[in-house]
Amino acid sequence: MSAPRQSLTNSLRRLFDPLLARSAAALSRLGIAPNTLTVLGFLICLGAGGLAALGYLFWAGLIFLMGSALDALDGPLARHSGRSSLFGAFLDSTLDRYGEAALLVGLATHFATAGQPLLVFLTSLALLGSLMVSYTRARAEGLGIDNAVGLLTRLERVGLLTLTLLIGWTTLGLLALALLTQVTVAQRVLRVHQETSSS
Amino acid sequence: MSAPRQSLTNSLRRLFDPLLARSAAALSRLGIAPNTLTVLGFLICLGAGGLAALGYLFWAGLIFLMGSALDALDGPLARHSGRSSLFGAFLDSTLDRYGEAALLVGLATHFATAGQPLLVFLTSLALLGSLMVSYTRARAEGLGIDNAVGLLTRLERVGLLTLTLLIGWTTLGLLALALLTQVTVAQRVLRVHQETSSS
Repeated sequence: MSAPRQSLTNSLRRLFDPLLARSAAALSRLGIAPNTLTVLGFLICLGAGGLAALGYLFWAGLIFLMGSALDALDGPLARHSGRSSLFGAFLDSTLDRYGEAALLVGLATHFATAGQPLLVFLTSLALLGSLMVSYTRARAEGLGIDNAVGLLTRLERVGLLTLTLLIGWTTLGLLALALLTQVTVAQRVLRVHQETSSS
Repeated sequence: MSAPRQSLTNSLRRLFDPLLARSAAALSRLGIAPNTLTVLGFLICLGAGGLAALGYLFWAGLIFLMGSALDALDGPLARHSGRSSLFGAFLDSTLDRYGEAALLVGLATHFATAGQPLLVFLTSLALLGSLMVSYTRARAEGLGIDNAVGLLTRLERVGLLTLTLLIGWTTLGLLALALLTQVTVAQRVLRVHQETSSS
């Protein structure tokens, strides 16, 4: 399951991994189950989506960052407490997608209310691209091909989305997200092509 | 890969399968490659998305039905001509998602232009739900669990979406799509839970 990743993700992970491990150890001592954390992280992201729909973009970004941080903790917690499970991994992946999507659906609704069809278009493309980045990985793994390559994995998407909302450069940020997620999908399609033609 | 499917899909498939097989045989004689058909089907659905964005919903529905019919033919053609490949299966799945999404992104953009935020909300939810139905199947298959169960597989989604646009009951149709796709995701989450707790 461990593929060579792009260097930005690697550096970020090296930075955050010790922090995640220590937080996971603390949560494990409190007896919190990994799946509880998964569901809690999703509910917080759902709240961020609600705030976005109402037009509170800055607060939506902040809450989304908190929810996503919790979402990043469930895996390390499961490993630390020895409670990793197939269902846990599946639920985590599924609710990670829903958490990210909740924010984007909220944003699309807000931009529609504010009469900004171009931003609705970009947000829909970003929603599509983000989900397809995850889909192409999952579909390839179903065919036995590891496919975690590419520019914009979840960590970068969360970072880009949060920055976009906190700084307020929505058009630029959503344009970047809309385009770079499709580039990532193309990278993953190419990788499956290479893997299947070399064998 | 063959799971028990709901009876509606089964009946529809029994109805269409002989037609698909005969069309696949004809295309095979013309020497058309399955991947060509996959890309062509996607481009037609992309055109449907463009028509939807411009507000021509009836025509978008009609063109989408044509594109989806082509998309349904690539699998039988690949099997009939003995040109099935891992990459072909992957490309087909990926472009099927993009074809369906193109129509929904087009619709969301149109509803935003027309000042209908509720319909933008429902369309975004339908986009999310449709992609997640496919995601939960792919992710489960990566874990070794067959997961083609549920109410709204692609065939029913295409049917519902086309009917919605041809008849013009957009609010009702999109509401049904937005809700029933999430129900299907829940069915697939439950199935993975059952499969992993029984083993």
